[in-house]
Amino acid sequence: MELAITPIGEIHTPFTEIKGMPIQPAGARGIRGTVHVYEDYVQGLEDLDGFSHILLLYYFHRVHDYRLTVTPFLDEEQHGVFATRAPKRPNPIGLSVVRLRAVDGDRLHLENVDMLDGSPLLDIKPYVPDFDQYTHVRTGWLEKSRDNVEHKQSDERFSE
Amino acid sequence: MELAITPIGEIHTPFTEIKGMPIQPAGARGIRGTVHVYEDYVQGLEDLDGFSHILLLYYFHRVHDYRLTVTPFLDEEQHGVFATRAPKRPNPIGLSVVRLRAVDGDRLHLENVDMLDGSPLLDIKPYVPDFDQYTHVRTGWLEKSRDNVEHKQSDERFSE
Repeated sequence: MELAITPIGEIHTPFTEIKGMPIQPAGARGIRGTVHVYEDYVQGLEDLDGFSHILLLYYFHRVHDYRLTVTPFLDEEQHGVFATRAPKRPNPIGLSVVRLRAVDGDRLHLENVDMLDGSPLLDIKPYVPDFDQYTHVRTGWLEKSRDNVEHKQSDERFSE
Repeated sequence: MELAITPIGEIHTPFTEIKGMPIQPAGARGIRGTVHVYEDYVQGLEDLDGFSHILLLYYFHRVHDYRLTVTPFLDEEQHGVFATRAPKRPNPIGLSVVRLRAVDGDRLHLENVDMLDGSPLLDIKPYVPDFDQYTHVRTGWLEKSRDNVEHKQSDERFSE
């Protein structure tokens, strides 16, 4: 069974190459980008400007194929792809929480962007701590790597 | 442009009807469910059991069509659909953070499930507070409704 999804817009960032990008919004603090929402969907942005942070779902458009085990940027060992945030996934859908600076017609002005320029946007959801924050969390193999996320950059391992 | 996505598994929960469901995992504390991951993707689960919480992306398979403005379960006023978590979205992709109790072969045993039984699973990502938690967050129209999320249940407004 295949399901069809249709981009609702396009994400613009300073990152035009996969190599050297921040690997999460936590490593992209202060980096600005924009979303262009296609005309057919602009009405759906009403009241979004009340939210300081939004969740973006987008398509990893430059990633082809996938792997079930990967060596993520934050480790030297292999892990199942679903235990990582690596882009080479069976459904290459990315998820980032970004800061929403302003809404201006069909443009969203963002901060903390970690996406590749031109990424097709699939969905926008408000970020709500009551829904999205949990305490007493264990993070498996990432426990030993967590200090690296702000400084680590991507290399070419998921480039093709 | 249409993009194709393929379910990697199926979510099983006690909720077989849209009416009367919890509207977020925060309202589904303690409710158990399972994920059946299809055989082709089971290898990708390696090391997932180190994580206490996971993000599930899934398809709102019982939702047809979409609206650009909706009256969400938590309010009596209309808002742009992208300023809500309502299921009738241009790309009907749901996002929930659930507690991972155990991984047993091709089954994930979950707690705090708020999905409809039979929802096609699109992706599993580890929940990582360093990536996914933000402070100093404004939540727009939801500020006045936040106390309701644990008690509010769905009705039929998004049923067809």
